[in-house]
Amino acid sequence: MAGEIEARLKALDLVLPEARAALGSYVPFLHLDGQLYIAGQLPLADGKIAVAGKLGAELDLGQGQAAARLCALHILAQARAALRDLDRIVQLLRLNGFVNAAPGFADHPKVLNAASDLMVEILGNKGIHTRIAVGCASLPLGAAVEIDAIFAVN
Amino acid sequence: MAGEIEARLKALDLVLPEARAALGSYVPFLHLDGQLYIAGQLPLADGKIAVAGKLGAELDLGQGQAAARLCALHILAQARAALRDLDRIVQLLRLNGFVNAAPGFADHPKVLNAASDLMVEILGNKGIHTRIAVGCASLPLGAAVEIDAIFAVN
Amino acid sequence: MAGEIEARLKALDLVLPEARAALGSYVPFLHLDGQLYIAGQLPLADGKIAVAGKLGAELDLGQGQAAARLCALHILAQARAALRDLDRIVQLLRLNGFVNAAPGFADHPKVLNAASDLMVEILGNKGIHTRIAVGCASLPLGAAVEIDAIFAVN
Repeated sequence: MAGEIEARLKALDLVLPEARAALGSYVPFLHLDGQLYIAGQLPLADGKIAVAGKLGAELDLGQGQAAARLCALHILAQARAALRDLDRIVQLLRLNGFVNAAPGFADHPKVLNAASDLMVEILGNKGIHTRIAVGCASLPLGAAVEIDAIFAVN
Repeated sequence: MAGEIEARLKALDLVLPEARAALGSYVPFLHLDGQLYIAGQLPLADGKIAVAGKLGAELDLGQGQAAARLCALHILAQARAALRDLDRIVQLLRLNGFVNAAPGFADHPKVLNAASDLMVEILGNKGIHTRIAVGCASLPLGAAVEIDAIFAVN
Repeated sequence: MAGEIEARLKALDLVLPEARAALGSYVPFLHLDGQLYIAGQLPLADGKIAVAGKLGAELDLGQGQAAARLCALHILAQARAALRDLDRIVQLLRLNGFVNAAPGFADHPKVLNAASDLMVEILGNKGIHTRIAVGCASLPLGAAVEIDAIFAVN
């Protein structure tokens, strides 16, 4: 029985990536008491950083948005690994978005919108969320973006 | 019927700013299961960034504190928009403070204290909170400070 | 009656530091409704920053890991101050790790692993957590690392 969200993924012609193991001695997700915590996700493709570098320097806005979108897909891949059924998502409560950015960069919201838009496209109203977007001096493995998430689930 | 917190705002001669729309495809607040998540708030006045730049560079401590105070007022404006009645706040659980700062800056706690002090001044014991304070390479629209919040509410 | 976690601390020959007061107008911990929020902890020894500076510049990986470990010990010290009994910890839900790092630094996960490993060593399965690791342009008092935490507790 494919659920509602899985059907929407198909309709959008989207395939979630494989949920990747953590990059250290932690876990990619934790589900307790109706909350699902997702660890910081990087813009991976085939297990490697697909978008590395700094916004406002060697990367342009489109590349940053591609990175944010990859992070969002990995967040959903982890949620599926945690819940087995994405229909158990009640609400995406929070995205914390960290952009690897040069000191003068100011368009963090536009970068993160690529992740936010995708969440709403896939999850509908359950994907509407609060957010922070900030600029980091550096990120793990040189990634362009890192995003973590908290979901309410049942 | 003006509540207790509204009365304290009046006594302090403070007027909360208008709750502003999100800077992208997310929402400024989400209220679920007794928790109120507030998205990252910027130091806005009349809908524009009122304090832009970097602490430890072109901005001094007083300007950073003015920015933090504006962020705190916008957090409360969003809480009022979410709850209609600020007396429904049970406890401010967390402020996450992001300071746009030069690499050598070290006084993040002093900047954030302006927000923390204001929360306690307005909310009393319910405004006592945990906090992080970190330095960012850049922030949306060049803002000097960004602060988000989590409240316990009823 | 020494609890299970206290016994493990003894077996590991670890002594938690004194829980330090907050560096401003906030509190180091808040316990409400089964969640314990710990404010950002710095790498302190005897109340002073023990590891200051930037990873990828004047600090090497080992120094960063020592800083992360100190932050983790202070998180547990705050948890003990909050709960009196560390056995009341149900699960470490989240570590948010902020590394003071030069723009080209990429080994944030290796730095944070020192904190993550210690949590699992001390708390066992209850110490397995989700995590973010990001690079900051600067941190309070020049600290090399800042880490905050959220626990589920009873």
